[in-house]
Amino acid sequence: MFQSTTQVRVRYSETDQMGVVYHGNYAAFFEIGRTDALRDLGLTYKQFEEEGIMMPVLDLGFNFHSPAYYDDLLIIKTAIYDLPAIRSRFDYEIYNGNDKLITTGFATLVSVNMNTKRPCRSPVKLLEKLRPYFI
Amino acid sequence: MFQSTTQVRVRYSETDQMGVVYHGNYAAFFEIGRTDALRDLGLTYKQFEEEGIMMPVLDLGFNFHSPAYYDDLLIIKTAIYDLPAIRSRFDYEIYNGNDKLITTGFATLVSVNMNTKRPCRSPVKLLEKLRPYFI
Amino acid sequence: MFQSTTQVRVRYSETDQMGVVYHGNYAAFFEIGRTDALRDLGLTYKQFEEEGIMMPVLDLGFNFHSPAYYDDLLIIKTAIYDLPAIRSRFDYEIYNGNDKLITTGFATLVSVNMNTKRPCRSPVKLLEKLRPYFI
Amino acid sequence: MFQSTTQVRVRYSETDQMGVVYHGNYAAFFEIGRTDALRDLGLTYKQFEEEGIMMPVLDLGFNFHSPAYYDDLLIIKTAIYDLPAIRSRFDYEIYNGNDKLITTGFATLVSVNMNTKRPCRSPVKLLEKLRPYFI
Repeated sequence: MFQSTTQVRVRYSETDQMGVVYHGNYAAFFEIGRTDALRDLGLTYKQFEEEGIMMPVLDLGFNFHSPAYYDDLLIIKTAIYDLPAIRSRFDYEIYNGNDKLITTGFATLVSVNMNTKRPCRSPVKLLEKLRPYFI
Repeated sequence: MFQSTTQVRVRYSETDQMGVVYHGNYAAFFEIGRTDALRDLGLTYKQFEEEGIMMPVLDLGFNFHSPAYYDDLLIIKTAIYDLPAIRSRFDYEIYNGNDKLITTGFATLVSVNMNTKRPCRSPVKLLEKLRPYFI
Repeated sequence: MFQSTTQVRVRYSETDQMGVVYHGNYAAFFEIGRTDALRDLGLTYKQFEEEGIMMPVLDLGFNFHSPAYYDDLLIIKTAIYDLPAIRSRFDYEIYNGNDKLITTGFATLVSVNMNTKRPCRSPVKLLEKLRPYFI
Repeated sequence: MFQSTTQVRVRYSETDQMGVVYHGNYAAFFEIGRTDALRDLGLTYKQFEEEGIMMPVLDLGFNFHSPAYYDDLLIIKTAIYDLPAIRSRFDYEIYNGNDKLITTGFATLVSVNMNTKRPCRSPVKLLEKLRPYFI
């Protein structure tokens, strides 16, 4: 498996009138986890799009355990448990600064050839970088 | 069961550089579905908060079938298949103007007493209005 | 001059922990005003992009007079006081259901040829439709 | 005067179908500039709200000079040129990693007593920390 950890500080714009982070904003936090997981591998998602592969989200799930608050520094843990094929699955755990579990969830992405608009194998560079973690 | 249908027009701000609605924005579309389902019952979520019950989202799931585009008029179908207890589950189907299935999913909400911060029974008015649909 | 009126209902996701609409969301409300002003003229912004002209925002100003709240039905009044040239200016007034002034402001857009990435004249169709209002 | 510099990395969710950061998102970037300017002074906005003063935005202006792109690391420069009274004005410059000017603008905030809902003097702690910069 491959694991990566990053952080995000909660913005005022991300709170709602319950005084907590609006649940819909965790999709962007998961996306930050993915982006920084790739960065830890020496890759960027930008690079994939430049090479003609985009990776839209196919499905997405969230469990909200505890609320997060404005200005909290959240820890996002992103894990890949299976080597991506056409689909890539990312699993997430988000904690606050007191190690309290805030949100868990997952995202499944599908690799799509930007010219043909058809599903395709995950970017070669992604597989190369990930393979050592799955031996 | 209880069903309700509403519409939302895609904003430019809701697109991303793939040229489609950013997946994270569907959480707000589901929320519009809930708000308008309550309105169809002669209720408002605002009313629940004024009566001291808030209903945060506990879990949330999305399946993305087809992309939606800027200025599309989306049809949001919201269904309640079980009479709410402490938890209330809403199921969603979103279609575009050509009856193409865009996104399906669900949200589970939990009723919380705003004073005690403890889970509580769903708002009485919600149950009164829904009961006729579950006989 | 040309004037157009549209409506938007405040979403829960658009509130912040002050219990009011987050100020940053009014940019999207202005954009809804523009989109629906064009629709009133029998045009769509989508059409302009398909014809190779995009109209990014050049500058933007807001004055916040009164707060708006979750589930408020806001009235957006969009006005064009001068026939667009390379630049197009839109002026806005947003009211709530009690005719209370919520927000005023403006946006200046610049027409850009999507191939050359250079400023260009506003879309011909826009000028054709607007000209009768400026005689 | 007082100056502070912070950074923000552009999220995929912040792009639009023009392939650049959606203009409405700069309001949140300005807010990050404010939050981190206060942090540099040893303060948090959170603290002000806990002390019963909230500071809603009164007016807001943006000039968009160049687009920013997904995954860009933006530099936000926040300046206070006048010691706050009831109103506090923040001026902003946002640059990308190549020192290219992206966006400039300002925000005026008004201090409001959360009990009386009436304008009030800026938080005492804010004035104490800022005064040395205005001698």
